[in-house]
Amino acid sequence: MSATSPQRITLIGLGTIGMSMAALHLTRDNVIDVFDTRPDFVDYLIKTLPGFLADPNSESIEPQPEKVVAALISSGRLQIHSSLETACASATIVQEQGPENLEFKRSIWKKVESMAPASAHLWTSTSGIAASKQQQDMQDKTRLLVVHPFNPPHIMPLLEIVPSPETSAERVEFARQYFSIPGSRHRPVVIRKEIPGFVGNRLAFALLREACHLVQEDVVTAGDLDTILMASLGPRWAGNGVFESYQQGGGEGGIRSFLNKLGDTMQNVWDGQGRVNVLGEQGTEWKEKVIQQTNEAYGTQTPEQTREKEERLRRFIRIQTQRF
Amino acid sequence: MSATSPQRITLIGLGTIGMSMAALHLTRDNVIDVFDTRPDFVDYLIKTLPGFLADPNSESIEPQPEKVVAALISSGRLQIHSSLETACASATIVQEQGPENLEFKRSIWKKVESMAPASAHLWTSTSGIAASKQQQDMQDKTRLLVVHPFNPPHIMPLLEIVPSPETSAERVEFARQYFSIPGSRHRPVVIRKEIPGFVGNRLAFALLREACHLVQEDVVTAGDLDTILMASLGPRWAGNGVFESYQQGGGEGGIRSFLNKLGDTMQNVWDGQGRVNVLGEQGTEWKEKVIQQTNEAYGTQTPEQTREKEERLRRFIRIQTQRF
Repeated sequence: MSATSPQRITLIGLGTIGMSMAALHLTRDNVIDVFDTRPDFVDYLIKTLPGFLADPNSESIEPQPEKVVAALISSGRLQIHSSLETACASATIVQEQGPENLEFKRSIWKKVESMAPASAHLWTSTSGIAASKQQQDMQDKTRLLVVHPFNPPHIMPLLEIVPSPETSAERVEFARQYFSIPGSRHRPVVIRKEIPGFVGNRLAFALLREACHLVQEDVVTAGDLDTILMASLGPRWAGNGVFESYQQGGGEGGIRSFLNKLGDTMQNVWDGQGRVNVLGEQGTEWKEKVIQQTNEAYGTQTPEQTREKEERLRRFIRIQTQRF
Repeated sequence: MSATSPQRITLIGLGTIGMSMAALHLTRDNVIDVFDTRPDFVDYLIKTLPGFLADPNSESIEPQPEKVVAALISSGRLQIHSSLETACASATIVQEQGPENLEFKRSIWKKVESMAPASAHLWTSTSGIAASKQQQDMQDKTRLLVVHPFNPPHIMPLLEIVPSPETSAERVEFARQYFSIPGSRHRPVVIRKEIPGFVGNRLAFALLREACHLVQEDVVTAGDLDTILMASLGPRWAGNGVFESYQQGGGEGGIRSFLNKLGDTMQNVWDGQGRVNVLGEQGTEWKEKVIQQTNEAYGTQTPEQTREKEERLRRFIRIQTQRF
């Protein structure tokens, strides 16, 4: 079946990422089968899913969210299951957003393999456990790959597609095509090697490590560091990647000139980078300072603030694809 | 004189950053005195400055750019000097964007100090040479501070204000207030300690180092890495700083929960970070690969592309301060 045809997608695990992923799949002409082990799952789904489906251009909030889910169920586009077996039985894609726990992942794929059609594509939304580790107990190791979304996936364009060495090239291409459907703002990227954190989080954690070091050293507060990022690198990297930025920054000589011109400062910075740790006994002194300053700067986000932040994110992403 | 009153600003060095800075100052009711040693300076100014002053909301391009500069000169708002002495004579602020060369900086400040009024504020736009190094030959070391812009400063909101240990607190506050004038989109941030690369470039270079490592290791191409950044971290950090993002990512427990939940993956990534170098003999193998892939992905930017990128950047920044 072509990746651009309507799919029948089983979602296992409907936490925040799972709900957002359901919303993404429901923007297209798919049928979604959902399975989650939480005891109040149906109530939770009825209350939560409509928030992810809300039309961002509509000012009005649906006064009866239960009607949204009821309509999806009665049209056959959403099916709620109390067993994994029925949830997987007719799938063309099975996607899991369960706990980040290797034993759970291994056991779920072993079960899914025995329950889903042999043709079904198997996707894990893990942020940290490579497909090659998850597939250990599977018969056919060519079927599984990582589809790592960035939160919230119904808005954020990136999907990191990370095959194991045994994943078939056709299944990688199917996933890439599914998320590249014309009209979608999503941008799947295939990662060529399994590596901890994949690419997006490796880049984020590299920046975060230096950020924590700078707060620990009292160069800047956590709040001021965030202002610096939002007032410079955030909007720059929303418009250009890091390599393209330095290609421009180097003028006619491109990134080669840039590296020549800024080489001394860059090496000086690299030599002095902080080596803070998040685990272990040494190099973790920054943690309480960062947590305290972050709490002071932001507290807990209100639902109104969350809504506004999401709307802002949608606008940034809309501008990325506008021509003018 | 209050920082919010009209200023008389001497700009030394009118390369790309200097022109953009002139445009920033000219959006307010200031008088600008410009000085540059290039032989064709007047012609260059007449050709170049209007592009920085263009109304981004106007579709039409000024057919006679020389008229723009002529009008500024005849109104007295722009004064072109052929000697540093006359350029500095009436300044309330002297700002240099000259070569990134310590000898040049030391010698220019020694001269400026003997030519400008004693009350004038002295700002260097350096990206790498701390004020404490530049001020060595000055009589009064309390006057000089770094005002490090991000390119292009007439659009990009960030100004990193980095005093030396000897800079007076009043002069730091004056610079902060000047760039915080109500209605300005600029966001000055005071850095508490001199450190190579200040904060913005330290964060950028930390991310770049890992990016170069990932390209060198064939995890991802330079172009795909840029797509990943633009499809995730760019728009995220345009809306929230890194600490605020993880405060939200941790849910009710905030950044503390986030660090607990993601700690294993994060430490794993930190332990495996690339240690590429830009100078020296070891760890520089990535350079030709990155340069080649970046050239292949982007080539040389056309003026039309530059204009479009700047307009996109303006829109991102406008959205940052919109309420909805």
